[in-house]
Amino acid sequence: MSGSSAGLPALLALDWGTSSLRAWLMTESGQILKEYRSKHGILNLPEGGFSAVLEDLLGLWRLPILPPAIACGMVGSANGWAEAPYLACPVSPDALATSLKMVQTGQGMLSIIPGVRDDGMVPDVMRGEETQILGVLALRPDLAEDVTIVLPGTHSKWAQIHQGRIVGFRTFMTGELYAVLTAHSILGRFSAPERPSDAESIMAFEDGVRTGASGDSVSSLLFSARSRVLAGRLSAAAVPDYLSGLLIGNEVYSGPRLNRASSQRTVLVGDDALCARYLRAFRLLGQPEPEVLGNTAPAGLIKIAHLAGLVPGGARSQPFSGVGA
Amino acid sequence: MSGSSAGLPALLALDWGTSSLRAWLMTESGQILKEYRSKHGILNLPEGGFSAVLEDLLGLWRLPILPPAIACGMVGSANGWAEAPYLACPVSPDALATSLKMVQTGQGMLSIIPGVRDDGMVPDVMRGEETQILGVLALRPDLAEDVTIVLPGTHSKWAQIHQGRIVGFRTFMTGELYAVLTAHSILGRFSAPERPSDAESIMAFEDGVRTGASGDSVSSLLFSARSRVLAGRLSAAAVPDYLSGLLIGNEVYSGPRLNRASSQRTVLVGDDALCARYLRAFRLLGQPEPEVLGNTAPAGLIKIAHLAGLVPGGARSQPFSGVGA
Repeated sequence: MSGSSAGLPALLALDWGTSSLRAWLMTESGQILKEYRSKHGILNLPEGGFSAVLEDLLGLWRLPILPPAIACGMVGSANGWAEAPYLACPVSPDALATSLKMVQTGQGMLSIIPGVRDDGMVPDVMRGEETQILGVLALRPDLAEDVTIVLPGTHSKWAQIHQGRIVGFRTFMTGELYAVLTAHSILGRFSAPERPSDAESIMAFEDGVRTGASGDSVSSLLFSARSRVLAGRLSAAAVPDYLSGLLIGNEVYSGPRLNRASSQRTVLVGDDALCARYLRAFRLLGQPEPEVLGNTAPAGLIKIAHLAGLVPGGARSQPFSGVGA
Repeated sequence: MSGSSAGLPALLALDWGTSSLRAWLMTESGQILKEYRSKHGILNLPEGGFSAVLEDLLGLWRLPILPPAIACGMVGSANGWAEAPYLACPVSPDALATSLKMVQTGQGMLSIIPGVRDDGMVPDVMRGEETQILGVLALRPDLAEDVTIVLPGTHSKWAQIHQGRIVGFRTFMTGELYAVLTAHSILGRFSAPERPSDAESIMAFEDGVRTGASGDSVSSLLFSARSRVLAGRLSAAAVPDYLSGLLIGNEVYSGPRLNRASSQRTVLVGDDALCARYLRAFRLLGQPEPEVLGNTAPAGLIKIAHLAGLVPGGARSQPFSGVGA
């Protein structure tokens, strides 16, 4: 059986965030047959809402019926298609797989993966990243015993994995602070419209990284993006690079100092260009260099689909359950 | 002579910032005869620009000619009426008084007070606050030997005074971060439009102060304004209070930890309501309670006018110089 079904579509896997949607059509084993990307995040849906997006996707890929389907991300938030509650740390892959929120889409059932919350002194939440984390553990089971997984982005996550479970995590608002400060604060207002030279850009980023890692409060350090320009120590055109360096440098400096982030090994997960910036910061600050993995969401989605028995295969292969057909 | 001129207008003193203008008509001794406030900051000038604002003020106060006039604040920036360069720390009152930038206004001469810069590892600038600081030292000469002066605001300053000079300072972007994050970030987007109860407001502010003073990076702590709401530990309506507490708490925690801020005595200078919030943070964090002074800009303006000989009186009384008549 498993040989004959190889190459056939077995799972529609969705990473449905606030501002974008990524979808993959996969075989039982997780081989990607088709890939799709759109701006139809949950806050930017076309007429017809969630259903219309799903219907368009089925049409585009000429699927007469909805195959088993699974989704992660903000689609499971209070503003999403249906609310999948947060599971409290520590969270295992099995716990996620047995807590899927089932939605009747009109075309069939969709399973939404819950988010994860950390109820520590400073409470925290993630939604979507838990699936990328499971993807890391599926791709690299050797890391599951003890690793820090860093997922840079609008709300960067530093997650601590111990014995295959997410035991705790913390968010840094690095990406959003960068966007909001360059667009709406005095720091962006006085940056120049022209692009800096490559040399200026690199120097500004590196100066930013070192400043961000000085141990002082970011609330104070940020103002140096203005005062350095006034002092002739930063070109106005390179202010965005300096800010990016400062916020990333502060995150890379602070992440390992959080209580639970004490692993020997660190993995970076995400977009190539952004991971490259983080790598430069790790190097500049003399921290052990993390291994970089690309987008691990597809690997996480098929892993949970396997564990939940939505498709056969994986460590806990189960007969096809017929959900959504 | 000094007796006969008491009560007569001798100085027009201006605190001319980015978004507002405050003006005082003073006697030789600094007694305030008239006070004026408008929204005509340097980025919000009416038709006719700086001159028109000054002319209107003379008309309003029925002054046939411009008396000796002095100004501090962003009016002396590159975007101001004329650029008064920054003086490098350490800066004495005399250095400020002998570095005034003279502007021919059309109605007579205006003297603009320079800003101050700190060329330390993390460079910093102030413009306007140096005058408030001189006002503190004029009103309270007993503090001049060694004091930390905290000036809360959009860009809060923590200035270190030693032997009557400004020896160093650091800016915290507390007010601007609060404004930008509540207006443009996810933290503000999910706050509720209704007002919280007084009890909710106080509790949220205090929780924010304690969180902001936890020693972790603000970039990470800020996200708790979102996750606490999701965890049911903060009402959406009280998010602005929590954010205010978090940013102020972080500033009050971090300020004394900056290298130069090591005085035994601390003074808070500024708006009553804002100083009250800072006082609550100092108390909550168990820090020695600072003395609160109101707006010390008028005292600073007359002090520098005295030192510069624009009006007679003060420690270095000089004959009336006739500038601007």
